[in-house]
Amino acid sequence: MSDAPDSAASPIRAIDVIRKKRDGLELSRVEIESLVGGYTRGEIPDYQVSAWLMAALLKGLSRAETAALTDAMLHSGEVLDLSEFSAAKIDKHSTGGVGDKTSLVLAPLAAAGGLIVPMISGRGLGHTGGTLDKLESIPGFNVNLPLERFREILHACGCAMIGQTAEIAPADRKIYSLRDVTGTVESPYLICASIMSKKLAEGVDGLVLDVKTGSGAFMKTDEDAAFLAQLMVETGERMGKKMVALITDMDQPLGLRVGNSLEVEEVLEILLGQGPEDLRQLCLELAAWMFHLGGRASSIAEGKTLADQLIRSGQALDKFRQMVSLQGGDARAIDDPKRLPSAKHSADILAARTGYVSAIQSELVGTACVVLGGGREKKEDAVDPAVGIVLHKKVSDRVSPREPLCTILYNSESRAVHARKLLEQSLQIADHAPAPRKLIHRIIPEPSQPARP
Amino acid sequence: MSDAPDSAASPIRAIDVIRKKRDGLELSRVEIESLVGGYTRGEIPDYQVSAWLMAALLKGLSRAETAALTDAMLHSGEVLDLSEFSAAKIDKHSTGGVGDKTSLVLAPLAAAGGLIVPMISGRGLGHTGGTLDKLESIPGFNVNLPLERFREILHACGCAMIGQTAEIAPADRKIYSLRDVTGTVESPYLICASIMSKKLAEGVDGLVLDVKTGSGAFMKTDEDAAFLAQLMVETGERMGKKMVALITDMDQPLGLRVGNSLEVEEVLEILLGQGPEDLRQLCLELAAWMFHLGGRASSIAEGKTLADQLIRSGQALDKFRQMVSLQGGDARAIDDPKRLPSAKHSADILAARTGYVSAIQSELVGTACVVLGGGREKKEDAVDPAVGIVLHKKVSDRVSPREPLCTILYNSESRAVHARKLLEQSLQIADHAPAPRKLIHRIIPEPSQPARP
Repeated sequence: MSDAPDSAASPIRAIDVIRKKRDGLELSRVEIESLVGGYTRGEIPDYQVSAWLMAALLKGLSRAETAALTDAMLHSGEVLDLSEFSAAKIDKHSTGGVGDKTSLVLAPLAAAGGLIVPMISGRGLGHTGGTLDKLESIPGFNVNLPLERFREILHACGCAMIGQTAEIAPADRKIYSLRDVTGTVESPYLICASIMSKKLAEGVDGLVLDVKTGSGAFMKTDEDAAFLAQLMVETGERMGKKMVALITDMDQPLGLRVGNSLEVEEVLEILLGQGPEDLRQLCLELAAWMFHLGGRASSIAEGKTLADQLIRSGQALDKFRQMVSLQGGDARAIDDPKRLPSAKHSADILAARTGYVSAIQSELVGTACVVLGGGREKKEDAVDPAVGIVLHKKVSDRVSPREPLCTILYNSESRAVHARKLLEQSLQIADHAPAPRKLIHRIIPEPSQPARP
Repeated sequence: MSDAPDSAASPIRAIDVIRKKRDGLELSRVEIESLVGGYTRGEIPDYQVSAWLMAALLKGLSRAETAALTDAMLHSGEVLDLSEFSAAKIDKHSTGGVGDKTSLVLAPLAAAGGLIVPMISGRGLGHTGGTLDKLESIPGFNVNLPLERFREILHACGCAMIGQTAEIAPADRKIYSLRDVTGTVESPYLICASIMSKKLAEGVDGLVLDVKTGSGAFMKTDEDAAFLAQLMVETGERMGKKMVALITDMDQPLGLRVGNSLEVEEVLEILLGQGPEDLRQLCLELAAWMFHLGGRASSIAEGKTLADQLIRSGQALDKFRQMVSLQGGDARAIDDPKRLPSAKHSADILAARTGYVSAIQSELVGTACVVLGGGREKKEDAVDPAVGIVLHKKVSDRVSPREPLCTILYNSESRAVHARKLLEQSLQIADHAPAPRKLIHRIIPEPSQPARP
């Protein structure tokens, strides 16, 4: 309405980019770069970007727009050049779940198999745990390393695990904070650009995505999870990366332990060839895909066999010990988990009746862990590494009256009371076992025939 | 995702109001009041409100939400109580056009007929002129009066015309500024709430809306105009006001003069019983509706006769002279328009060929006036009251080669060159006259049978 008539030669204005997306038109790469760059440089205010984000959420982005947004966010900061490594650089990313500690298994496992794993992770948010918080429950472990030290550790042991630094995708950090307070988190296009910009900044050749689906996941249905997975795979492939996404179950927590040091203990079990079956299977599957993308296995079956051997031989655990040590952590805790922080008190939740566990609502379990102090209600909250929940039963298990369903590990009585209520709500018992859910719902793209059967 | 589980008793959070509208759900009155109140008090940041505005634009608002938004904005500031006046308080509002100077005719005309007209107007924005800018071309005229002085003038002469004060609908001022820079102007729901909150703050009993339609209007089609009109009429009626909306033509400029002092000259012509026919007819029609709503005329025909008599008798012009004088303006300019500012230079645009004027694109004429300095490109720009355009032909008029189509009145040669280009683009000549357009397209609600034929 108030546009000057001769704006053809003018620079791109944020207001015009907002209007175009609002009207459902496709933005050019240059328009998206101008918006992201202007915002990162502080030239475009929050209130314009939040209006644009809402328009993007409600109108959607095309594949080309999603790729342009990812690219603009990626190039808002440093992009690691790891071409000095001759081995394939492969990472894994999960969209977040409850009890999902696979990253801590996969980084050393894949590195033990000859891959380079430059893993930059996040902290827990909401009911889902964060890889950095779990690592920090190992006394001394430092996730805040400068990129040069990160590179040195990659040279020394093939894997390193740090938090996002100021140099990596600053646009994403700024946009994510804004999305969090403007109701614009829940867009597959914006989620894709956020995840992929950070992961591609790591300088990887390939990426295995673990897209969670179910009650405890961000994407509640397989359809939504597959849509996001497809978007991320296509975006990565457009940028020349080897990509695969596994859509995996998050209807109940993964494994038996939820809480930071409790999850490290379970990681050690897996690396010792033990631990719960669902977690073990998912780790083998994800590792196999990492080996396959990285050219270390010609089929998934072969990749799984390799992963299993690396665990049985102790090489994966050795690699974990080495990484912990290089990142300043107390490596003795690896062989003596009693050195990990432990909670002062424990209390069991008992089955009230005979039957089968029909549901363990992950979101409530995750929230119970946050309530105990194991996660953050606000960003600035400190995390208690020791608290959490140990499940004794999983969905479909038979239970008898007064049999323990789970144990709460806590440091504060009042927090435990609140957590108990959530857990009692979460754990449901019925007369019959529910239909079993598959651990891996789908693989995107649909896998081709294995090269060797 | 990061919600605490027990937020039932918490106060309303802006993020939840944003999400609810984003998901297309209907907001409660309390939720809308909380958002508008929190924003006006500075407790809710711009970036949350801009995300909400975009969601509201794209998802729409229900009638109840629109009324609640209007009410919340209205009660963000002072609402005038004019109950001390026994006569009906009636105002008119136009959605904005080019050459639309009807307010300057209607305020004194309606007051001459015994109504109280407490008119609070705006400035020109974009290609449309503003009532305040036109009034200020009368030397000394003061539109920035405190509300107490406004009331005194209403007592003295029945009409007064001022700008929005800080006390009136501060929420609207803040929200409008934000909409202007976030691509959220073009929503009928938000437009309705903005207009109605300001107009209802005047303490009127009834309101005549002039909703413009056509190339030079905000609403390009009759359907869009009727939708907005219906929304405003229903919102006003919910609040107990007498309402009518006329959907009127803005496919070409109204009258023959565009520019601040030029338009005041044309207002004087109308008040002298002269002037262009389209403008005269629209003024009579709008005045008739004001008289009808205010109980001074039992039919529109009767209202038009009354308006015509008040002009012929000179009472309307007397009232204008009185108001100008009370608001500090030089009343001698009313009888001697040469006292109004006039431009130094003039130049004609001549017809290039024989034919009929097939279009005069209002938006380009309005922009040409802005380019000459008669409007603002940025809010802080000063306005040159003297410059503008005088049309010699209107749509369907026959023209001969080298016959003047319009005259540009200017103070800067370079600005005139730019304006000429726009005007040459605006004025189109064809072999045949186009199908005539009606001045009044529709009346909402559909008028009932007149009480007396």
